[in-house]
Amino acid sequence: MTKTLVFGHSNPDTDAIVAAKAYTYFKTQTSEGDFEAVALGNPNPETNYVLNHFAEPAPRVIKTAANETDSVILVDHNERQQSISDIAKVTVTDVIDHHRIANFETTLPLFYRAEPVGCTSTIITEMFNEEKIEIPAQLAGLMLSAIISDTLLLKSPTTTDKDREALRELAEIADIDVDSYGIEMLKAGTDLDSKSDQDIINGDAKSFEMGGKTVRIGQVNTVDVNDVFARQADLEAAMTKENADNGYDMFLLVATNILDSDSELLVVGDPKEIVEKAFNVTLSDKNRAALPGVVSRKKQVVPPLTAAFEA
Amino acid sequence: MTKTLVFGHSNPDTDAIVAAKAYTYFKTQTSEGDFEAVALGNPNPETNYVLNHFAEPAPRVIKTAANETDSVILVDHNERQQSISDIAKVTVTDVIDHHRIANFETTLPLFYRAEPVGCTSTIITEMFNEEKIEIPAQLAGLMLSAIISDTLLLKSPTTTDKDREALRELAEIADIDVDSYGIEMLKAGTDLDSKSDQDIINGDAKSFEMGGKTVRIGQVNTVDVNDVFARQADLEAAMTKENADNGYDMFLLVATNILDSDSELLVVGDPKEIVEKAFNVTLSDKNRAALPGVVSRKKQVVPPLTAAFEA
Repeated sequence: MTKTLVFGHSNPDTDAIVAAKAYTYFKTQTSEGDFEAVALGNPNPETNYVLNHFAEPAPRVIKTAANETDSVILVDHNERQQSISDIAKVTVTDVIDHHRIANFETTLPLFYRAEPVGCTSTIITEMFNEEKIEIPAQLAGLMLSAIISDTLLLKSPTTTDKDREALRELAEIADIDVDSYGIEMLKAGTDLDSKSDQDIINGDAKSFEMGGKTVRIGQVNTVDVNDVFARQADLEAAMTKENADNGYDMFLLVATNILDSDSELLVVGDPKEIVEKAFNVTLSDKNRAALPGVVSRKKQVVPPLTAAFEA
Repeated sequence: MTKTLVFGHSNPDTDAIVAAKAYTYFKTQTSEGDFEAVALGNPNPETNYVLNHFAEPAPRVIKTAANETDSVILVDHNERQQSISDIAKVTVTDVIDHHRIANFETTLPLFYRAEPVGCTSTIITEMFNEEKIEIPAQLAGLMLSAIISDTLLLKSPTTTDKDREALRELAEIADIDVDSYGIEMLKAGTDLDSKSDQDIINGDAKSFEMGGKTVRIGQVNTVDVNDVFARQADLEAAMTKENADNGYDMFLLVATNILDSDSELLVVGDPKEIVEKAFNVTLSDKNRAALPGVVSRKKQVVPPLTAAFEA
């Protein structure tokens, strides 16, 4: 039997990288067979901070899976357009996720565990507890970083009691002061000077099918949204090019102030009226709109936008 | 908040009815809110035997959900063509299932738990254990009946160690001799004299989308397949009418001998060559073929047929 590859979504964020490592460790403790955590892209600056802090190597980056295995495990995603390019050629045996389910289909029964919580690593923490498997301190450090990242230090509306409980438990195992470590880690992800326009718009972007349109949604964390919009003309040009090159109908960039828990939206593509309707805003002549209190793409951007596109 | 309705697939079998009752009990023990187990059809003779044996009422039958609730829980299925007719109008909050995932999509994150085991009630048994909730003896009797039904007394190739372990545990709680009770229960489901042609072809039928075609697959358990094929002309007429009335491209009836663990197939519709290719058989001039060792629609019929249709 070949090695099963375990990976998160393309444009990996901290949870996508960490959940792959955590679930790989879980599987090696509970199942026969070989498992390897890999990634569909390089770690972003925040994830690099995390990996460096806990002296953990970045996973190997793969572009295709079928050339080396016939079975894969997906963490932190399920939609095929967010997954490996040749997903149709391999068998998905397990999925651990905390997103909506869409554009996902199998021929055979599989292990699928999704919960409406803030972070995949929270679900994996529960699974370790259910199976009474101890989490090594270094892995606990990675997993608590993923929870801090996905929930913006428990401030995102996606945060649940299970995330709070898992973070508390993991912090105890890893012996980490969550608040001070968390702010340093989040700030490490907001250094925009070192990022290209392409990094900013695409670093965390995901594609969604909505009412027959392909909508690309990127999100960038910052401590001052002016750092983003000082580069607006260049970002718009890069978004326009991405739309043309990839057939996206629309590109939305959500710039999120992690200290204030607010966002500002930049939209390239049409029809813009749908975006205005979705968020009940009027786009300025700069194609921008403030989204007060919005920090979660999954919970506060994708659902209203999907509803507006499919109305 | 309205009551959340919990139901299994249309044409309910024992697991569809029992898993709805079991998960409803689980939810009332673990969550806020009101939950009601309902069904998308009347119990079949086997399920009636089970409900009578444990003095449990049949669940209320519903045709639509949106008229009385905005949220539902699916057990033992996920594909929309096997679910309530107005599934698109309600929010699915939880799914507990042991089938492939297909034709299923949500706008919001949800709780989804699927495992490649023989029976949904096995997964629910695990969940009771994880949460350390005691299973009442009467409910344990229902749940062990579902496992016996879905695994044909642990003989189906869908059976896993988790099913064996759950059955053992539930039998101890319910104080039931599994072998003698199991045979009586399975036999209660094979009284074909009392069944109309429609009951036989449709009593357990499910629809599947395969390579752009709609394929209807029914299965009937018996202790002698000749009891089924003595009525072949009438059954074929009924299957032809079902295809025409519902736009199915093909109807397959799998007649399964539960004592020998063999099946015989009857096919109405085209293209029949795909069926021959899928099972590596030649259909007789009676449109029939023996399928030695085949007892599981899910594991031994749907996957090869899907592969052949999509090749």
